[in-house]
Amino acid sequence: MDTGHTAWILTAAALVCIMIPALALFYGGMVGSRRILNMMMMCFGGVSVVAVLWAVFGYSAVFGNSVGGLGLVGDVTQYLGLGELLAEDPDAALPPALFAAFQLFFAGITTAIIAGAAAGRMKFGAWMLFAGLWSTLVYLPVAHWVFALSSADGSVTGGWILNGLKAIDFAGGTAVHINAGVAALALSLVLGRSAGWPKSEHVRPHSRPLVLVGAGLLWTGWFGFNAGSALAAGNSAAVVFLNTAVAGAAALLGWIAVERLRLGRASSIGAASGLVAGLVAITPACGAVSPLGAIAIGAIAGAVCSLAIEWKYRLGFDDSLDVVGVHLVGGIIGTVLIGLFATDAAPNAANGLFYGGGPALLGTQALATAAVLVYSFAVTWITAKIVQLTVGLRINPEDELRGIDIAAHAEEAYLTDEAPVQLGSPSRT
Amino acid sequence: MDTGHTAWILTAAALVCIMIPALALFYGGMVGSRRILNMMMMCFGGVSVVAVLWAVFGYSAVFGNSVGGLGLVGDVTQYLGLGELLAEDPDAALPPALFAAFQLFFAGITTAIIAGAAAGRMKFGAWMLFAGLWSTLVYLPVAHWVFALSSADGSVTGGWILNGLKAIDFAGGTAVHINAGVAALALSLVLGRSAGWPKSEHVRPHSRPLVLVGAGLLWTGWFGFNAGSALAAGNSAAVVFLNTAVAGAAALLGWIAVERLRLGRASSIGAASGLVAGLVAITPACGAVSPLGAIAIGAIAGAVCSLAIEWKYRLGFDDSLDVVGVHLVGGIIGTVLIGLFATDAAPNAANGLFYGGGPALLGTQALATAAVLVYSFAVTWITAKIVQLTVGLRINPEDELRGIDIAAHAEEAYLTDEAPVQLGSPSRT
Amino acid sequence: MDTGHTAWILTAAALVCIMIPALALFYGGMVGSRRILNMMMMCFGGVSVVAVLWAVFGYSAVFGNSVGGLGLVGDVTQYLGLGELLAEDPDAALPPALFAAFQLFFAGITTAIIAGAAAGRMKFGAWMLFAGLWSTLVYLPVAHWVFALSSADGSVTGGWILNGLKAIDFAGGTAVHINAGVAALALSLVLGRSAGWPKSEHVRPHSRPLVLVGAGLLWTGWFGFNAGSALAAGNSAAVVFLNTAVAGAAALLGWIAVERLRLGRASSIGAASGLVAGLVAITPACGAVSPLGAIAIGAIAGAVCSLAIEWKYRLGFDDSLDVVGVHLVGGIIGTVLIGLFATDAAPNAANGLFYGGGPALLGTQALATAAVLVYSFAVTWITAKIVQLTVGLRINPEDELRGIDIAAHAEEAYLTDEAPVQLGSPSRT
Repeated sequence: MDTGHTAWILTAAALVCIMIPALALFYGGMVGSRRILNMMMMCFGGVSVVAVLWAVFGYSAVFGNSVGGLGLVGDVTQYLGLGELLAEDPDAALPPALFAAFQLFFAGITTAIIAGAAAGRMKFGAWMLFAGLWSTLVYLPVAHWVFALSSADGSVTGGWILNGLKAIDFAGGTAVHINAGVAALALSLVLGRSAGWPKSEHVRPHSRPLVLVGAGLLWTGWFGFNAGSALAAGNSAAVVFLNTAVAGAAALLGWIAVERLRLGRASSIGAASGLVAGLVAITPACGAVSPLGAIAIGAIAGAVCSLAIEWKYRLGFDDSLDVVGVHLVGGIIGTVLIGLFATDAAPNAANGLFYGGGPALLGTQALATAAVLVYSFAVTWITAKIVQLTVGLRINPEDELRGIDIAAHAEEAYLTDEAPVQLGSPSRT
Repeated sequence: MDTGHTAWILTAAALVCIMIPALALFYGGMVGSRRILNMMMMCFGGVSVVAVLWAVFGYSAVFGNSVGGLGLVGDVTQYLGLGELLAEDPDAALPPALFAAFQLFFAGITTAIIAGAAAGRMKFGAWMLFAGLWSTLVYLPVAHWVFALSSADGSVTGGWILNGLKAIDFAGGTAVHINAGVAALALSLVLGRSAGWPKSEHVRPHSRPLVLVGAGLLWTGWFGFNAGSALAAGNSAAVVFLNTAVAGAAALLGWIAVERLRLGRASSIGAASGLVAGLVAITPACGAVSPLGAIAIGAIAGAVCSLAIEWKYRLGFDDSLDVVGVHLVGGIIGTVLIGLFATDAAPNAANGLFYGGGPALLGTQALATAAVLVYSFAVTWITAKIVQLTVGLRINPEDELRGIDIAAHAEEAYLTDEAPVQLGSPSRT
Repeated sequence: MDTGHTAWILTAAALVCIMIPALALFYGGMVGSRRILNMMMMCFGGVSVVAVLWAVFGYSAVFGNSVGGLGLVGDVTQYLGLGELLAEDPDAALPPALFAAFQLFFAGITTAIIAGAAAGRMKFGAWMLFAGLWSTLVYLPVAHWVFALSSADGSVTGGWILNGLKAIDFAGGTAVHINAGVAALALSLVLGRSAGWPKSEHVRPHSRPLVLVGAGLLWTGWFGFNAGSALAAGNSAAVVFLNTAVAGAAALLGWIAVERLRLGRASSIGAASGLVAGLVAITPACGAVSPLGAIAIGAIAGAVCSLAIEWKYRLGFDDSLDVVGVHLVGGIIGTVLIGLFATDAAPNAANGLFYGGGPALLGTQALATAAVLVYSFAVTWITAKIVQLTVGLRINPEDELRGIDIAAHAEEAYLTDEAPVQLGSPSRT
């Protein structure tokens, strides 16, 4: 065991944890002031459900030996309850419990991302049930496909996308962002549009400063997410870190440049969304490209996603906080552009089309994208339907109009004290 | 010296620092909008007083050789000013200055936790004085009892709870949470109830989003607190990290499940409080239990603390922000349940009753709990009385009613600009 | 390569990233509610421009071999695009890409600090242009002077302040804080005073809680900034960490003590500003002094800066958020007091006047201060003039009065939903 690697992954896991309040801020600021609590509760509650399931069987389903050696899902009984992970593994580079903790937050955050599509209108109990089911039926198998590595000696069989297709996805462009993004689309379709859409209250950001702060904390946490996925404190983590830094910056600039050209001004929501879109896009690619490639992917993601968030109005689905436009589109951009921008000088050591690598990698990346897209959309749709037909998905229309916070949580986010008195003659204390 | 261990404790100390703004948010959101600044100032000011005292004599009082070998308090002159810690210690696993910095924030945060009992009615100068006295008279000796390890060769004598009683307290269930929690009870009794209690303005949360964000950042910081207490980047830290993650999640679910059953809804304050209660409870136990044990302790803490916060109404003390219900009760639950859930497969290598270890450990844990409880309550009560009889504790009733921020700090938390003008025709810039 | 050192610098870089949202909060809370978005956008936008330029040529200009061996500026073509940093360097202690990423955020944050002088009245496009030009013309050369180390074998020539003058500046008292502070003065002079100054809306803090939270997160991030500058996880980083902790605390106390003596109350803005002033002052000195020295420097910085922020009213410049009073004055205090408080027991191993080292070090520190002060003021003034004469600096007066957020970004920070309905009968969900 290497203490430096262990130190970095302990840190990285804590950094991914900061993405929970960060996401709650990013999403919470974008909804109305009488919907923010529910949005934040969906983030915290969803992560918590997934965390407990992860310890019980989730880790096993992702990192257990593939059932039947098919690369489709891990053996859920293998590390049931994680009690076996208490002991040191002298052969492992990292303590087994640490890897499980790091990946726990991946599962939680991925599920929470979907909540952005369901702002202001979903029963809280239904969300909690959906979060548990979705993480089990969709996240766990897809994460197995993408993150579970087969052992060199053949004793452990991992997932088919990583080991069979050999697609490049350093930190979860497919398993996290395309997965959550297309699930957001499916959930928003089953859930239906909010009252008054597209002019509904839900999508009036009540506090843009919270959105920017959330984006800034997400950036911080993303270094744990991406550079932690190197699973070691070495050169790969360093390159990934640098690429994550510049891709986020370039995407922020790309998004607000497009805004400036189209609308004459650069918005704070655009800056925050651009930053996140760039971080999404570099997630699969952060180990495959050079810093200039990362800047290109970031700038493209920022520019394209700034346009993509308008598709929902034409297509008529109410993805309240643009999970589709940012995570699905950004995730596809990053995953597919690896096929163009990958350079064998980077840790993934593969060449894309622009670096003389031929079109094969582009095809591989497209295939991985398509597989996750189709599976996640279909199973999410069915899962949402099951919840709809059992406990029901929507709160009632009056509650939706007066704000879900009161209806679902009997709380208002903000209360003001009695009218302020005059300043000027403070008493000493 | 090991660079990996050093890297992790540097990180852990920075993570514990994030608990300062996190606690200020968690507490600040729970008070009225004209009391938040004072609450945040109590956190930042209290930590700052303790930090300076720590460098002067606090570190020595905790980690200096026990005076008379009694295990009651360290020699305050031993590392006076910490100038001796500048040099490397070739025999130590960590740089001595680093351990002092890590523990500095423990002392500061523990003191700041107490502030939650005194919301909206305590003179700021009195609080600053109390913080200095309390950390000196209560925290330093108790931390010596629990955290100061005797050396194997007998040259250094540490605290009696750790070395004599041999109670298990991985990261401060007794020294931090029971200690601060019972001190909050004593302070609230001496300080008295706020005007209009139990319907006082102080306990009207003016911004629940801040509470949730604070809880989320506390979760992040707690990984430094708990996993940093392993003082090494190894398997123990990893197990502790995993247990801290799942206990927090389980407690959040436990609290809101009880709310749902009793009141029909899950609240955001409940989710935030549940998360913190779980983190409190797992603090002593994080190195002693399995992930399933951590889930059990978390769920129990969440459920019980959600009921415990109502005792103050029956018993008639004004612990404004439920420091007793969350930190004292949560701390006792975690410390005592080690006696049931400890498993020798975990880093502490002891078996509790449920794992065939007999009732002895339960007794040991109860004794450590009782010792800290009695000492801290008594000395805190006397300390608060001394401050009351010298500089006075309470602001005057009018100031309390119009809001302590203006009275104590001549400031209002929030100001609004002139009435907003119409949107619609933004000028280009 | 050492994995422990690498783990710590990965962490430190992420901690410096948290300073972006932290600074946006610290500054954003201090302006009016209709100016906060612009202030936050200046932080995020400025960092993003600098990050991209850093990858293209900035890193080379700082850490490339000195052009002509003069120690004035690095060879901008040396690491163009940073593609060369993808490969491991077997001779380096850290991955080259990691050092570049860590330093990237230094460049970004330094530029963003200046924004505080220009609150509420600068065209956003002009700011973005200024940020790019300033980082190129001022930050890059000054950082080369201070941070670029000549190699022992003479093959690489670094900056003149570090290698020729041999001034002590552990983490950027000159290159970061004096530099940004005096640039803020120059920019505020060219930009001119805001409408209605000194009673302008810009300087009415609309949310003091955000200011305190920002300060707390800055403290957290500063440990990455200062202790990360040790570039290793060892004793130096540990001492720096401890000094950074106590200096911040002492400065908070110093500032509010002066407030209490002069005005009868301790303010939250004072506490936050004091904390930051102490962190600024300890930045150059954190490796040169003992913990008691750090406390002295912090307390002095807190006290002096609390007075220095009033100079602008006498001298008539509108440095809206006191970048001069905190960063310039605090930076000078810390840089110069090294000449008094340095002790050879600390990592920098030099003695100041109080430790028997004679006045030479004081002179060296003053010279470094003067050099950065003069160069930065002059070139910043010229840069601001160029932007003024080309795209213009100021928004128009009506836009300034109604709030720059609407004018520059077509956004309002805060929106309230429809009037709240009665609580009391929440429906079940």
